[in-house]
Amino acid sequence: MGRTRTYQWEDPAILAEAAGRMAGIDFLRELKEGRLPAPPINYSIDFTLDEVEPGRAVFSLTSGEEHYNPIGSVHGGIFATLLDSAAGCAVQSTLPQGMAYTSLDLTVKFLRRITVDTGTVRAIGTVISQGRQTALAQAQLVDGRDRLLAHATSSCMLFPVPPARK
Amino acid sequence: MGRTRTYQWEDPAILAEAAGRMAGIDFLRELKEGRLPAPPINYSIDFTLDEVEPGRAVFSLTSGEEHYNPIGSVHGGIFATLLDSAAGCAVQSTLPQGMAYTSLDLTVKFLRRITVDTGTVRAIGTVISQGRQTALAQAQLVDGRDRLLAHATSSCMLFPVPPARK
Amino acid sequence: MGRTRTYQWEDPAILAEAAGRMAGIDFLRELKEGRLPAPPINYSIDFTLDEVEPGRAVFSLTSGEEHYNPIGSVHGGIFATLLDSAAGCAVQSTLPQGMAYTSLDLTVKFLRRITVDTGTVRAIGTVISQGRQTALAQAQLVDGRDRLLAHATSSCMLFPVPPARK
Amino acid sequence: MGRTRTYQWEDPAILAEAAGRMAGIDFLRELKEGRLPAPPINYSIDFTLDEVEPGRAVFSLTSGEEHYNPIGSVHGGIFATLLDSAAGCAVQSTLPQGMAYTSLDLTVKFLRRITVDTGTVRAIGTVISQGRQTALAQAQLVDGRDRLLAHATSSCMLFPVPPARK
Repeated sequence: MGRTRTYQWEDPAILAEAAGRMAGIDFLRELKEGRLPAPPINYSIDFTLDEVEPGRAVFSLTSGEEHYNPIGSVHGGIFATLLDSAAGCAVQSTLPQGMAYTSLDLTVKFLRRITVDTGTVRAIGTVISQGRQTALAQAQLVDGRDRLLAHATSSCMLFPVPPARK
Repeated sequence: MGRTRTYQWEDPAILAEAAGRMAGIDFLRELKEGRLPAPPINYSIDFTLDEVEPGRAVFSLTSGEEHYNPIGSVHGGIFATLLDSAAGCAVQSTLPQGMAYTSLDLTVKFLRRITVDTGTVRAIGTVISQGRQTALAQAQLVDGRDRLLAHATSSCMLFPVPPARK
Repeated sequence: MGRTRTYQWEDPAILAEAAGRMAGIDFLRELKEGRLPAPPINYSIDFTLDEVEPGRAVFSLTSGEEHYNPIGSVHGGIFATLLDSAAGCAVQSTLPQGMAYTSLDLTVKFLRRITVDTGTVRAIGTVISQGRQTALAQAQLVDGRDRLLAHATSSCMLFPVPPARK
Repeated sequence: MGRTRTYQWEDPAILAEAAGRMAGIDFLRELKEGRLPAPPINYSIDFTLDEVEPGRAVFSLTSGEEHYNPIGSVHGGIFATLLDSAAGCAVQSTLPQGMAYTSLDLTVKFLRRITVDTGTVRAIGTVISQGRQTALAQAQLVDGRDRLLAHATSSCMLFPVPPARK
């Protein structure tokens, strides 16, 4: 058959709870090391968090036929997902415990067509500017030869999380 | 188990070939009616083309836990995928046989958080402006009460497809 | 000589003070009626506020040679200025006394080249979505035949103004 | 009076003609050195081209009260003008004789409020990616201490110029 895929995921409530009681960088390191379960989206679309340090996060994906759009290439929404994750987690990696973020926007520029022949792609997110209420990040999607395939910017809003109820 | 999902898809080469020999609106109508197989991305992310007419395309999705990000809501990349499809297919619906398009960019504004409680969402794409070489479309993501959840614009490049080789 | 222009403007501090003590719609109506002085930018670039109602603002400009870029058409920054004003004032028109806004971003799509032959253009700003902390507006630049020349979206942050110090 | 300003400019047709018969970098160097007249927009808004090399262009401006919006700071359209110039000229600097460009879009993120106290600001444009038909550039607006005030990306379309008619 070939054209079938099965995936499993874990309860995302575990993650959302952990995100609220840890600094961003610690939360992301736990995710990367597998000490917290990856979020469901990572299983759905099959991408992984490969690197994280303060102000920077890198995700990778190997495109498959299951990501194809009707016109014979990988759907732009797949890269948008990776780029949004990379930009958002770069911002999250800078937040102390008690602060959270939400993405206000994502602007993606599609520079090259991506197919199953493209191989593994990496989305490298970095923080460009950080204020008290908002942060701006960019993310670059590159192939194995570091050619730029897509580029994104994302603005995030920063806010204090309400303390956990006892 | 519950937290497992299996999906199948069909060979996307069939679609890419059909796209090249039909007017955009005819191709999209065949897709909508199921006379052409849906592209793999529709199975991966589980969304459907519900409506198409010249200059307008509507997709819908019922968010599931498998779309969740690490911070307890549906990942923005899922809406980006729907919005990109809606904007792109709105443009495609206006193209005569022999013309194709590619998305140059996608700008998404995330207006409301989406969870499994949001229910079915619809992405309504419409063409704003069409030139000879480029077209601009917008897409609006709404819930069952027509509240705006996200908004996108996308510029597409238009180009003649090379004739099929014999 | 011909290629010379002189303009005057009034103290912008008068305006900023008035903006703080009036509802947005009242402030903009005073501006439109000339009971408050137009801001300096309107004199520099020579555009006017023509219409304002809650959630909508319209500015117009007649392009002149003094707006030209090096490649023989009106500089995109001129339209960006009009579109930013129209989007921002559409948002401002919805704010009660005590609330202010600042633009977080502006995304402009340039659809048609503009020259001195284009005549008077209008930027029509409307609010698309309004939350407690942010609002999204769009603006459309049209010519005298209502052809779309450029399109913009802008996200604004909303915040309470500090009360005036005695 | 103080609040008055007079400026002059030169026939922009000279420039548009020169742009058509020179490589981008040569054209921009002539502009920078003053061997070609600056375009009218530079006189209207009072900014200058300070640096140009292949793939990079830098403009500067000293904000004045004449650039103020109604809410007590420099109008975002002024920075948009600088950022659009920096991004566009970075692209132009890479084009051989016979090729021209037009900006398809401009996405500006406003990061800090700018007033007359901000002093001289610089918009640094660089090319991020260049294809045959499109190029992507970014521009950063910084103050005298290199703090980021605004950030922009711009996609440009590249096309051959028609040969001059005899």
